[in-house]
Amino acid sequence: MGIDVKKLAQDAAEARYDLAKMSTNAKNGILSKIAGYLEMRSSFIIEQNKKDIAAGKEKGLSGAMLDRLLLDEQRIKKIASAVREIMNLPDPVGTSNSQVRRPNGLVISKVRVPIGVIGIIYESRPNVTIDAAVLCLKSGNAVILKGGSEAINSNRALVAVIKEALSSSGYSKDFVQFLDSTEHSAVSELLKLDAYVNLIIPRGGHNLISFVTQNSTIPVIKHDMGLCHNFVDEQADIEQAIKICYNAKVQRPGVCNAMETLLVHKNIAQEFLPKMASEYEKAGVELRGCEETRRIIPQVKEATEEDWKTEYLDLILSIKIVNSVDEAIAFINKYGSHHSDAILTENYANAMKFLNEVDSAAVYVNASTRFTDGGEFGLGAEIGISTDRLHARGPMGLEELTTFKYVVYGDGQIRE
Amino acid sequence: MGIDVKKLAQDAAEARYDLAKMSTNAKNGILSKIAGYLEMRSSFIIEQNKKDIAAGKEKGLSGAMLDRLLLDEQRIKKIASAVREIMNLPDPVGTSNSQVRRPNGLVISKVRVPIGVIGIIYESRPNVTIDAAVLCLKSGNAVILKGGSEAINSNRALVAVIKEALSSSGYSKDFVQFLDSTEHSAVSELLKLDAYVNLIIPRGGHNLISFVTQNSTIPVIKHDMGLCHNFVDEQADIEQAIKICYNAKVQRPGVCNAMETLLVHKNIAQEFLPKMASEYEKAGVELRGCEETRRIIPQVKEATEEDWKTEYLDLILSIKIVNSVDEAIAFINKYGSHHSDAILTENYANAMKFLNEVDSAAVYVNASTRFTDGGEFGLGAEIGISTDRLHARGPMGLEELTTFKYVVYGDGQIRE
Repeated sequence: MGIDVKKLAQDAAEARYDLAKMSTNAKNGILSKIAGYLEMRSSFIIEQNKKDIAAGKEKGLSGAMLDRLLLDEQRIKKIASAVREIMNLPDPVGTSNSQVRRPNGLVISKVRVPIGVIGIIYESRPNVTIDAAVLCLKSGNAVILKGGSEAINSNRALVAVIKEALSSSGYSKDFVQFLDSTEHSAVSELLKLDAYVNLIIPRGGHNLISFVTQNSTIPVIKHDMGLCHNFVDEQADIEQAIKICYNAKVQRPGVCNAMETLLVHKNIAQEFLPKMASEYEKAGVELRGCEETRRIIPQVKEATEEDWKTEYLDLILSIKIVNSVDEAIAFINKYGSHHSDAILTENYANAMKFLNEVDSAAVYVNASTRFTDGGEFGLGAEIGISTDRLHARGPMGLEELTTFKYVVYGDGQIRE
Repeated sequence: MGIDVKKLAQDAAEARYDLAKMSTNAKNGILSKIAGYLEMRSSFIIEQNKKDIAAGKEKGLSGAMLDRLLLDEQRIKKIASAVREIMNLPDPVGTSNSQVRRPNGLVISKVRVPIGVIGIIYESRPNVTIDAAVLCLKSGNAVILKGGSEAINSNRALVAVIKEALSSSGYSKDFVQFLDSTEHSAVSELLKLDAYVNLIIPRGGHNLISFVTQNSTIPVIKHDMGLCHNFVDEQADIEQAIKICYNAKVQRPGVCNAMETLLVHKNIAQEFLPKMASEYEKAGVELRGCEETRRIIPQVKEATEEDWKTEYLDLILSIKIVNSVDEAIAFINKYGSHHSDAILTENYANAMKFLNEVDSAAVYVNASTRFTDGGEFGLGAEIGISTDRLHARGPMGLEELTTFKYVVYGDGQIRE
């Protein structure tokens, strides 16, 4: 295809200073235009989306995959209304929650500013194209979008609509860049452009994440897998535990904050497991258990070492009986993905121990791990859930799309 | 040497959970022991340091380099007292400045926790070995230290003292690891151990920083160069501007927050530059100027494109005359290292424009850039000054050596 990746990154890097200094009103004006143009151009978008659907059918994509790919009138309306929601969120740029006055009179304020140019590499639904672009614009960042090849026509159309909205608002189309290529080499090239791009966010399967981590010279914030646990402690409220464990596994099994492994204290297993298993059975959940589990609920398949490391994203659950809260914590820190893990207990000391010692982005007492989400945490919309430890951990909202600078107000101070 | 880098990283990764859950009192106890043992073992440390000094002389290191390397009784006392200062700083672990109660009753607190295992690769003085180890311990992080080969005997001795203090306090010696190798390949191997190491901080020259950035699969926070500017606006207070520009260049020219390039508005240049130049002359500063500068102060050498990109770290200064605050901002964003830059002006609008639009870790009005420093900013001790944009930007203190987790207190909440 011969796309000039370097030129595109340079254009974004040049445009970013204009975007960084825009007022919130001006940025909201662009978002409003994007929402409006999405609705106006829906038939064009649907027409382009049909090409992807046709190609997907030819390639033999599953029904679920084709459904994820599909854009229709109603879905486009939903995307536009998500844009208007982001428009109504507070703008983090220019805010501060840390200011000091030093003994020498210097006033030093730590102020949120845009990160700069953000590259987002994703495989998922075409609505991510709009979501990611709009979250970056709202937080004052130029963005380079690289979507999956199966959605390339849809993504191209959606970016064309964004650029139309930018132009008609009188702003640079370079704020939003589309890496219009299905070549692997284009991504490799992007990942080395640390002179122009300030952050790479990969969202997708393990292969994508691993490729980006291995090859990027640009800082990366990974949105990797969620291998989440619930630990039913010996002093759990059994009825409540059943409700929470049911919710964590069944309510939406295909997402990263759903439970994949259930840990049960040996002293409550005899009472808890048969009741829990019968609930799961009704929902069609396949259970795989350790030896002790299978002594209590023998209908269960044997879990292997591989199961403890697997994010099923499906109605499958592995179960392990443990001897103590310490064993549960060690197991979670060893096999988990440091995403979201819960203890269900009425025991104060065990709850505190679990919260302190489990090394995950979100640790819960007596609630479903399904709440790990920007909206549910009160951050507003999210660009994803970081499984990294630096800068952003857990749900990544507008604030996490900013960095800061120190603004220093002096009146002649020099250093002695 | 055949050092097992992987084993060392694994040991640190295993030890980190014990360290993360330690109380502040317990960590301070270790720090106090380290300070005490440093003083007790000073003759051993000095003896080992002598080997490095002898080797350095043989290698023909400059007098300045040998002085940086030298440890004597008094310097060791100073290092020990720096350890006691860090001991007295507040511990960030467990603190929070963000907690919400959601409509469904979930209480969600964003709590600071250690990052995990931090690898620090440095070239500088042996005191960094102690500083870095102690800052990491205080913030609950296990640390892998890799110092420069010219200080290897000193560093080995200092780490032995730390390990002695750890053992005698009854804690694991694995909290602090020393990469005891002068082989390049040992660093390469470390940079790929993302399964065990959570952050790499390179401190040193451009070659080191660049090698680490290109080769690390672990997140990196760079402590790279400082190419700092002062811009004397047309409405500057000339006497104040002279004092500040003198301080920024002359007070300590060899550090990253010293000024390297002076920008002067054309309307004030005729009055300001001759006075300024005569002050610099007294201090022995070599000046290099643009064509317009040389018309006003003809004794000045010609500055080339290369000068605008050079961090002299010496008594050399490049000078450029600009037509407007906008030109100054664009110049700084193009040639600067996004470290520390100042405007000197009495004009409110220009000051605000400069603070908003200069894309640097620290932006100043009417003060010397020399203040960019953890101590001067009120952060206490610093592990260095980040020239990266993510997680930590500018002075990096104890708080920046932590990440956070979301702690969620529920009473049976499930997601609908």
